[in-house]
Amino acid sequence: MIYLDNAATTRPLEGAVGKAAKYLKEEYFNPSARYHGGAEVSRMLARARSFLLERIADPALFELEFTSCGTEADNQAIFSAARRGNAVASAGEHAAVFESFKSLKSRGIEPRFAPVKADGSVDADALVELVDDKTTLVAVVHVNNETGAVNDIAAIAKRVKQKNPRTVFLSDGVQAFGKLPVRLTKDIDFYSVSAHKIGGLKGTGALIRRKACTAFAPYIIGGGQENGMRSGTENTFGIACFYHAAEEKFASLREDGERLRSYRERLWELLDHDIFMRISPENGTPYILTVSAKGLRGEILQRDLWDNGVAVGTGSACSSKKPFSRVIEACGYDEAALYGVLRMSFSPATTEEETEKAAQIINACARRRI
Amino acid sequence: MIYLDNAATTRPLEGAVGKAAKYLKEEYFNPSARYHGGAEVSRMLARARSFLLERIADPALFELEFTSCGTEADNQAIFSAARRGNAVASAGEHAAVFESFKSLKSRGIEPRFAPVKADGSVDADALVELVDDKTTLVAVVHVNNETGAVNDIAAIAKRVKQKNPRTVFLSDGVQAFGKLPVRLTKDIDFYSVSAHKIGGLKGTGALIRRKACTAFAPYIIGGGQENGMRSGTENTFGIACFYHAAEEKFASLREDGERLRSYRERLWELLDHDIFMRISPENGTPYILTVSAKGLRGEILQRDLWDNGVAVGTGSACSSKKPFSRVIEACGYDEAALYGVLRMSFSPATTEEETEKAAQIINACARRRI
Repeated sequence: MIYLDNAATTRPLEGAVGKAAKYLKEEYFNPSARYHGGAEVSRMLARARSFLLERIADPALFELEFTSCGTEADNQAIFSAARRGNAVASAGEHAAVFESFKSLKSRGIEPRFAPVKADGSVDADALVELVDDKTTLVAVVHVNNETGAVNDIAAIAKRVKQKNPRTVFLSDGVQAFGKLPVRLTKDIDFYSVSAHKIGGLKGTGALIRRKACTAFAPYIIGGGQENGMRSGTENTFGIACFYHAAEEKFASLREDGERLRSYRERLWELLDHDIFMRISPENGTPYILTVSAKGLRGEILQRDLWDNGVAVGTGSACSSKKPFSRVIEACGYDEAALYGVLRMSFSPATTEEETEKAAQIINACARRRI
Repeated sequence: MIYLDNAATTRPLEGAVGKAAKYLKEEYFNPSARYHGGAEVSRMLARARSFLLERIADPALFELEFTSCGTEADNQAIFSAARRGNAVASAGEHAAVFESFKSLKSRGIEPRFAPVKADGSVDADALVELVDDKTTLVAVVHVNNETGAVNDIAAIAKRVKQKNPRTVFLSDGVQAFGKLPVRLTKDIDFYSVSAHKIGGLKGTGALIRRKACTAFAPYIIGGGQENGMRSGTENTFGIACFYHAAEEKFASLREDGERLRSYRERLWELLDHDIFMRISPENGTPYILTVSAKGLRGEILQRDLWDNGVAVGTGSACSSKKPFSRVIEACGYDEAALYGVLRMSFSPATTEEETEKAAQIINACARRRI
């Protein structure tokens, strides 16, 4: 199986799982337990927290709280910060942000959505235009999970704060963390990340918060874990896997990115351009190539490809109940293009040989369906 | 190490982890992916869901939603159901319920707490007395996690519904599920459970809901997983571990309970009754024996015991920042007793030999501290 659906989820890294295994077998203690075994596990959590945070932010200015997933991290940031007035997001947000924003209406807060360009990146001028003195929250996804477009969140956050310094700025970093070089600036208040997109496990995420941002409240209430900000016994094994997966990813982040960028371009070069139209921008994440086979159905092609040994996506796996993608639709494509979307997404384990073989199989499957 | 802190967390069952391992290694696909691999994982989730639900409830009347922990399940039930008026809980609730109830005040809902008896079970008459026509939610923990007292939730729920049929009834079943025979009656609307108390992993729980109860809303919003009720990519490995751990536990639930009841009594019999006072009732869960060493400090004794090869608790590991337990305090004990609390909690892996050896060590450590 050539697995090119790494933006949906990744195969857990054997090395990371192996290093974390002791938290299943020997050090299974509750980190809140006040005996030595509990304290040991608690120290691992502290090491994991520092490591993950320091990769992308200054620990003097930011802190990291573990959550059960990226979606929970987004929800906590949004429902902490959007308390009144209006909240502005890009039309290219992941469902975790987009659907949460839509739900703000029932709390008397007006959600506003800024248009995206054809590649899925937000129209920053239009976004800033929507911000006014009643805007409590702005959210802009770092890497669009459906097209791979990268938003310049530092620049956008700066413009938002210039217009309204009291606005809280959230970026969903799920497709960027461990893949792109990231350094959070002082204009970014919240940044959400996920373990299972970088070789960790499903069921572990984190929310990174600028300490000076006070628009922050616990979302899951109880025994006071995570400094009172996220109750529930910590998912120690998942957190240990996240930690060690990130160690591996960050060690070769730039080289992996360069190599995968060349594979992404190789894949595009080999695809039949009479059938496939490119949606992903060249300056997007190296990890995603989204195309559309106009006139074909993405999900039928997806199943053909599975039967021929290639796993690909058709858009966000998180919103698979819609006939086509809301985000690609917002990019301005017509219906024929929307139905034909295929997303190929890489991991550092992807090889050049797999990329070339996948291109052949994708072409062959598409030609048979025409 | 004689591990007698199983109410805080359990060692993951090797058999269950082994059976679930394929969801880490081969079947790591996103269950939302529409190709065969995703559908296979999705079918495992359906099997796990049915198995866990059917062990304690009629699947025609109830459904089960996976969450990241028991605390999240409690939060979702509470914040779905408590929308106005007042909400009544026992003073013996776990922090996941107790702290959430306290937070209702900021939403304009009055939390009311019913007293508990000396063994930690709720005073049912007093609880029912607090219910009126403005009560939207009542919560009674099934097994008190600090004393092991079992509340007769079926009878209490029935009385609550007789007084106000519109009241939603929640029971936190975290210390009961997979340990006591449970059958949810039609008067119980929500029941929360957790994997890591029965040999599954931290980071997996579930909320069981009576289908006819409409006071239910998503708490984590996004891609629409779990039938729209809990978004975020499903924790497939954790859920598979929960499933297989429950298979093991339910296969010998009654025999395990009988055996552990005899160990619990044997432990009590062997403890030095000049030092230790019993808090746990005889008709409580077989899995917990809570005592107090009057005049001693539980957490000091706990560390001594760890150094001598015995791990025990001192109360709920979820609220380890308080000097003593709010729940044991509510039972009416004086301060000297409160400081001396020790909780020994069993798993089916506990042996009679371990129990007897632990008793000797506990006595010896306590005598040295007097």
